[in-house]
Amino acid sequence: MSVENPAVDWGQALASIESAVNPHIGSGKVADYIPALARVDPNKFGLAVALDGGEMHALGDADESFSMQSISKIFTLALTLKQIGDDLWERVGQEPSGSPFNSIVQLEVEQGIPRNPLINAGAIATTDSLVSAYGGGEAGADKAIADLLQLFRRLSQDDSIAIDLNVARSESDTGSRNRALGHFMASFGNMTNPVEAALSAYFRHCSLAISCRQLARAALFLAFDGTDPETGEQIITKRRCRGILAVMMSSGHYDNSGEFAYRIGLPGKSGVGGGILAVAPDQGTIAVWSPGLNQAGTSMVGSLALGELVKQTGWSVFG
Amino acid sequence: MSVENPAVDWGQALASIESAVNPHIGSGKVADYIPALARVDPNKFGLAVALDGGEMHALGDADESFSMQSISKIFTLALTLKQIGDDLWERVGQEPSGSPFNSIVQLEVEQGIPRNPLINAGAIATTDSLVSAYGGGEAGADKAIADLLQLFRRLSQDDSIAIDLNVARSESDTGSRNRALGHFMASFGNMTNPVEAALSAYFRHCSLAISCRQLARAALFLAFDGTDPETGEQIITKRRCRGILAVMMSSGHYDNSGEFAYRIGLPGKSGVGGGILAVAPDQGTIAVWSPGLNQAGTSMVGSLALGELVKQTGWSVFG
Amino acid sequence: MSVENPAVDWGQALASIESAVNPHIGSGKVADYIPALARVDPNKFGLAVALDGGEMHALGDADESFSMQSISKIFTLALTLKQIGDDLWERVGQEPSGSPFNSIVQLEVEQGIPRNPLINAGAIATTDSLVSAYGGGEAGADKAIADLLQLFRRLSQDDSIAIDLNVARSESDTGSRNRALGHFMASFGNMTNPVEAALSAYFRHCSLAISCRQLARAALFLAFDGTDPETGEQIITKRRCRGILAVMMSSGHYDNSGEFAYRIGLPGKSGVGGGILAVAPDQGTIAVWSPGLNQAGTSMVGSLALGELVKQTGWSVFG
Amino acid sequence: MSVENPAVDWGQALASIESAVNPHIGSGKVADYIPALARVDPNKFGLAVALDGGEMHALGDADESFSMQSISKIFTLALTLKQIGDDLWERVGQEPSGSPFNSIVQLEVEQGIPRNPLINAGAIATTDSLVSAYGGGEAGADKAIADLLQLFRRLSQDDSIAIDLNVARSESDTGSRNRALGHFMASFGNMTNPVEAALSAYFRHCSLAISCRQLARAALFLAFDGTDPETGEQIITKRRCRGILAVMMSSGHYDNSGEFAYRIGLPGKSGVGGGILAVAPDQGTIAVWSPGLNQAGTSMVGSLALGELVKQTGWSVFG
Repeated sequence: MSVENPAVDWGQALASIESAVNPHIGSGKVADYIPALARVDPNKFGLAVALDGGEMHALGDADESFSMQSISKIFTLALTLKQIGDDLWERVGQEPSGSPFNSIVQLEVEQGIPRNPLINAGAIATTDSLVSAYGGGEAGADKAIADLLQLFRRLSQDDSIAIDLNVARSESDTGSRNRALGHFMASFGNMTNPVEAALSAYFRHCSLAISCRQLARAALFLAFDGTDPETGEQIITKRRCRGILAVMMSSGHYDNSGEFAYRIGLPGKSGVGGGILAVAPDQGTIAVWSPGLNQAGTSMVGSLALGELVKQTGWSVFG
Repeated sequence: MSVENPAVDWGQALASIESAVNPHIGSGKVADYIPALARVDPNKFGLAVALDGGEMHALGDADESFSMQSISKIFTLALTLKQIGDDLWERVGQEPSGSPFNSIVQLEVEQGIPRNPLINAGAIATTDSLVSAYGGGEAGADKAIADLLQLFRRLSQDDSIAIDLNVARSESDTGSRNRALGHFMASFGNMTNPVEAALSAYFRHCSLAISCRQLARAALFLAFDGTDPETGEQIITKRRCRGILAVMMSSGHYDNSGEFAYRIGLPGKSGVGGGILAVAPDQGTIAVWSPGLNQAGTSMVGSLALGELVKQTGWSVFG
Repeated sequence: MSVENPAVDWGQALASIESAVNPHIGSGKVADYIPALARVDPNKFGLAVALDGGEMHALGDADESFSMQSISKIFTLALTLKQIGDDLWERVGQEPSGSPFNSIVQLEVEQGIPRNPLINAGAIATTDSLVSAYGGGEAGADKAIADLLQLFRRLSQDDSIAIDLNVARSESDTGSRNRALGHFMASFGNMTNPVEAALSAYFRHCSLAISCRQLARAALFLAFDGTDPETGEQIITKRRCRGILAVMMSSGHYDNSGEFAYRIGLPGKSGVGGGILAVAPDQGTIAVWSPGLNQAGTSMVGSLALGELVKQTGWSVFG
Repeated sequence: MSVENPAVDWGQALASIESAVNPHIGSGKVADYIPALARVDPNKFGLAVALDGGEMHALGDADESFSMQSISKIFTLALTLKQIGDDLWERVGQEPSGSPFNSIVQLEVEQGIPRNPLINAGAIATTDSLVSAYGGGEAGADKAIADLLQLFRRLSQDDSIAIDLNVARSESDTGSRNRALGHFMASFGNMTNPVEAALSAYFRHCSLAISCRQLARAALFLAFDGTDPETGEQIITKRRCRGILAVMMSSGHYDNSGEFAYRIGLPGKSGVGGGILAVAPDQGTIAVWSPGLNQAGTSMVGSLALGELVKQTGWSVFG
């Protein structure tokens, strides 16, 4: 719906957020399954809000790069829908999962069709489709990643964005669970490339290093019906943009997606690198980062910051 | 967020909806697990839109009563939150279920805590809390139902609304699965009343007979931050109102909640009686009814009608 | 197969068992979900071996009564097969469960057909069939229990055997999980009596009080092709007797049935009262009792005693 | 237990078996997931009984080679227990699975520890241990397979036994599910070699081509406490031999292990190539082959033949 932009006093809003999060900086548990994530300073906190017309508000470590991890699934989904359209939905569902992000049980019950594109299995299947859209195999994987990187650079208006290949390698080294998901989908005929080709693209896009400021800017098209409000470039159609936000709302935060929707009321996506992306339709985007995670893998301080931001701005989609 | 009311041409919007649904009237499968539902005319179709200030638009069989079924879970949830507050969330979760509405598997994995208040187990637990809030036992069940009925009559401004006791009896006669859910929760210590007392209230509120016009009117508080916009009566707080809408968004339509959110983009709740309630925050409510169901238990024609309504009004919460 | 009775030196065998178990008497955890079980002395230990022709060897508290609990499922199964024959297998399976004794998950996956007659769901279904064989309802339950009690008294040649109604009442009071299983099966059409009628019989036969000596004697027909070797009374056919032993072998000890079969090599059945019944085909029966349980619900000391007995006698069915 | 060898009239026994199976030859469904299995003549039927002292009785196509498939798991298990002893049980369970042979669900619930060594996951883990016992990696896999093949040739007294590398290649080409199982166990730290190294050994031992006569001869040590009765070579200890038979009894036939135990009463193992191995402790072994499978993957005619053989010989372990 078209929405009247309420006059947010950003100075006061950011100050409130800072007060709210300050006592909690450093809480939660930093992801430690790969060294590159484990050695991140738990006391980091950054936040950036991107608004229509290039306006941007930032706080703390908003210019420091962090590992995007699962947040990249949103951009991969957008690019895949742009490239192959609704055919994606024949091999990936749209339903919330009700299970941890890397569960294999549901895949068995549902015959190799992952519940949605934001759980690992679904993101691997989506990536596999993207790789095929670029010709398939390792070469297709390379081209898909190159194009995705270009998209990030264009959207964030920053050519310095890059994949942390060290992280990508670690992801691959510890990627047994994701390999199991890939081969399991293959056993149901739901892989179009060799598992390792799809995973090589998957591990790389999860290893993008990005700052809050870059992320908020890059995601702005999601808040404006699929079109970058400054450049006018249409990334995806309005219908699909709404659809992506719907999937983020019900499935963006692993096993605490419902709690996030209840408390925050904005479509969002968490990554185990400590980042959270949230989208306020017709208003703007928020990227927040703080490495300490709650039990479900969502940034604790990031989640607190978003709670305060919603309080200050009134930006829930639920009224 | 506060939203500018776009000028909807309701005459044209309703005409478009009518054209869109007409070829499909009668499709889907009428619920047949109890006789009272099985003998409903599959060709019925009604729709009502309630707006701020008493404005109402209607179509087709909008004044004919149908069995509310699961849609009553929304009002039971609201009344329970009003009566006992957030204590409810200690025994019922907020997460989408990823399973059919009456699955018992998740209950076992999660030690008797139902995933959310809209699956059957969660609605039974919520009803149990409500019964306890009215003193507990069969007497508490009677008082809870009496108060819930009063609430419906007050909100819909229609004292004729009543429970179809014939339906309630049939529900009880075929209620083995719900009994199993109740006793199973009891085995985890998650029932405060005898199972039959909680179920007697549960079966009755699911058996409320209501028309589209009455339902849209009664739900209007959900579109306006928890407060009836005409009478000014606050049913629940703004925070909890948003929370209810979040739960509806992720879990309102059984196993096709995600698809509904993707396509319609409004918080909603389906009932196997063929009704669907949808809420457009800050705009109004839509009640639609047509008995034929899709495989997941949501009205097929009702769902089509909502798709067209969103197209005509632009009322997605996702922009 | 017909088997040559090896000459067991029972004096030495019993002495070895005593030495083996003595250091462990009192270990394990006594069942405490009902008071009557919780207050049993954990230091009790009894063992009785019944052989062809009335020969009996006993040790320790072999004459003290304990609560039979799940061991009664074997006799209920035998009496039900006697009464209704193989029709039972249309509503109860013969497969090991791979899940804890009271799991409801498998019931959902398998549409209300319990995996075997020794898990709770399967024993409730079996009891329900037995109740129907005696006319059904509460009256049928009473008659079934009366006949089962008669069978026990006749087989054990001891008219003093009785149901501990105090235990039966406690079982019923804490029986939510079993009620859930009953109603869940009813929801799939797999109950022929009201759930409470079937459960009233179920709770009673689980509450039989019996001594090791009585139990070993009563079970002797299972070691001799279904026929009591002393009286010549045929309880069940040879084919069904073998079948019961097969089910005991694969499913007699909850979640550690496989480990029991691997280590002991005899068909057996455990009860949470601390009893274990084991059958050595063509040789005899062993009843052992010691209240402390392992994590899976099998008597720890009882299991040790059986291990030593098999070592002394060579009575594994696996050579 | 030591058992008196009843005088079986083998001429009559074989004639009875032949009469019993003749009307059913060709029934069931030949495995078709790889071409080499799919093109086997469904009308084949062979049976061989090996007894103490080299006595052998055979019927039909008892000298024709078929693909051993899962039956090889028994020999792999024996060789692994011989090489690494009870350490195997720290990474593989002994419990029946209650799930189809290639289910991944249970692996998730049980944190990467397969239920038993006869389901695919457990056999892959066992093979992985065996590969490590031979030095690990692809070289270890080659040595393990070479030694296993030597064992088969020695036990069957036939040096012509070989692996069908064409089958092994097909198994690998269609092995996505097994790869998923391997990587899934690896994600829980329950693989000691690269998944592909363990699978290369696994696919090869499943592709052994063997005749009924060779198989019955090779398995004879299982009927005689772990020691080949003719050569006196001890393959495994008596205790472990009993244990293998116990696992075969509860888990040897996928999802119909219980039904097989109930009806046949002998430890056995089925393969989707249509072979079944059964062991009569202290008596002998039976190998039967007919390619048509029942729904659970066990040879239909083979199962009928074993039923008649048990009837004629009285060889149930349950009396």
